Amino acid sequence: MYREEIKVLDCTIRDGGLINQYQFTDDFVKGCYRASCEAGVDIVELGKKLAVSDEYTRDKWGKWNFCDDDDIRRVVDSCDSEHRPEVAVMFDVGRVDLDALVPADQSPVDMIRTACYVADIDKGIDLVRRTKDLGYGTTINIMACSAAIERDLIEALEQVNESPEVDYLYLVDSYGAFYSEQVSAYLAMYREHAPDKPLGFHAHNNQQLAFSNTQQAIIEGVNLLDATINGIGRGAGNCNLELLLNFLKNPKFDVRPVYRAIQEQLVPLREEIEWGFNDIYGISGHLNQHPREAMRVRGDNGARDLCYDFFLEQSGEGDSAMD
Amino acid sequence: MYREEIKVLDCTIRDGGLINQYQFTDDFVKGCYRASCEAGVDIVELGKKLAVSDEYTRDKWGKWNFCDDDDIRRVVDSCDSEHRPEVAVMFDVGRVDLDALVPADQSPVDMIRTACYVADIDKGIDLVRRTKDLGYGTTINIMACSAAIERDLIEALEQVNESPEVDYLYLVDSYGAFYSEQVSAYLAMYREHAPDKPLGFHAHNNQQLAFSNTQQAIIEGVNLLDATINGIGRGAGNCNLELLLNFLKNPKFDVRPVYRAIQEQLVPLREEIEWGFNDIYGISGHLNQHPREAMRVRGDNGARDLCYDFFLEQSGEGDSAMD
Repeated sequence: MYREEIKVLDCTIRDGGLINQYQFTDDFVKGCYRASCEAGVDIVELGKKLAVSDEYTRDKWGKWNFCDDDDIRRVVDSCDSEHRPEVAVMFDVGRVDLDALVPADQSPVDMIRTACYVADIDKGIDLVRRTKDLGYGTTINIMACSAAIERDLIEALEQVNESPEVDYLYLVDSYGAFYSEQVSAYLAMYREHAPDKPLGFHAHNNQQLAFSNTQQAIIEGVNLLDATINGIGRGAGNCNLELLLNFLKNPKFDVRPVYRAIQEQLVPLREEIEWGFNDIYGISGHLNQHPREAMRVRGDNGARDLCYDFFLEQSGEGDSAMD
Repeated sequence: MYREEIKVLDCTIRDGGLINQYQFTDDFVKGCYRASCEAGVDIVELGKKLAVSDEYTRDKWGKWNFCDDDDIRRVVDSCDSEHRPEVAVMFDVGRVDLDALVPADQSPVDMIRTACYVADIDKGIDLVRRTKDLGYGTTINIMACSAAIERDLIEALEQVNESPEVDYLYLVDSYGAFYSEQVSAYLAMYREHAPDKPLGFHAHNNQQLAFSNTQQAIIEGVNLLDATINGIGRGAGNCNLELLLNFLKNPKFDVRPVYRAIQEQLVPLREEIEWGFNDIYGISGHLNQHPREAMRVRGDNGARDLCYDFFLEQSGEGDSAMD
């Protein structure tokens, strides 16, 4: 029996774009959007909404790093599916231009998700307030909580709880470091210190646990779940949307359009960019590390499969060990 | 805090050999054996022990399909590690020559695992009895239980429970179809109907759940866990030994030799043969199917990535649908 309250958020373009600096073709974005419409997904996140600058240009960084309303409209209008997911975009603290944000009723965007580290929680909550004031649905996604000092994290959670403008609070396994027991423990902490906030969960697949940890979040009562088509996403990627829809029994979902998108859109893309589990990401998840170093190694043809060397180095047993 | 009772069985050669008809080089087998010795693994399964025949020759099917004692001795003697895992081999019902089996005290083999389907449980138990009579440690691995009629499975479990010669009873997710809730439900059934038997668990990774389901088995009290180096194994492969050792906190384990074996032995092998999760195996696991069809498709260069077509076909929506 399914749980009706569960919503699925497809962040294929937003998290996938972290691999290729958002250089997706329009056809790719439209194809993925269509798949999510037809699959009955609740929310589709189409990118980040950051501020353009001289250095930070659309050409170099890709238009889905900026998510202009007109670009979004072109995608949304390209699909004639009956079901229309909400459209989300992501804010990064310190890199957005709030003055350029129009009220929600003039925008194709329904939800703005604000990502921030614990240290930036005040800035994050401020962004959430201002987006809520403009009528958007809101989430706050606290990143890298597995590397935060617990006291600081708890304080951040308490602040979130006191902010009525936050619709959803996200537990994010940025480093792919969680086992199911950590999912449960963190969720218990989030519930204790932010009892008024509905929770979301965003996994990474470093240890082949993105899907199973998402199931654990469901067991623990989380009702907003992130996933991406074929698990595409930075480093080891995310929870695979198709596996998640197979698991969820709600008849409103139809997995077939997702498999069609994989066959037609994602399989060709796999020739160009890499995502998904491998040994290097497994080690970085186990060591609770930012994926930066693992991604660098995977990008180095001479080192990408030297997992033993990487393990020694990263666990402090190699030459680069520090006290 | 770790659970001291937990034992890890490395079936790299036995399950991996199902991909390449056991055509491993001697160096590969010795390297994997050495890794398990140095890693502190409890039991190493070096292959099947089937009967040679005119049709079923060592040349064609590989010597690790037959596991002659002398072959095993050469591997065991090649390693000077202090820690010595028990050596296991696997029996398939109907394909073994018991008359050729010497008593355990004259053999380098310590444990014989008998694999059988529910329908062959009497034959399986008979084999277990006769191997136990010769002094071997024994397990019975009931295959494909997710496709068995429950009443038949329960009867088989009751028979196993009444057979004192069975040391361990294995729950085997042959089709990679289990979610954690199925692991728990089957284990509850196994405990109810075979309460006297210590349990083992063998996973497959069709839905990226081999590792997490093995964790679930641990949570449910299972103390004998199968895994393979780098997850090698038929189809989507098995629970990755390195991930499992990372998870288990028992200081007797050392994951580094496993990563060294991956870097030196498994990475080159990945150029020749394929294992691990992909979309096709994900579908076959979701549909609770024997991996036969999925393996055929993955072996067909024109079809191996056509997951949408495969989904329609296998879920009965394509041309080959049957009533």
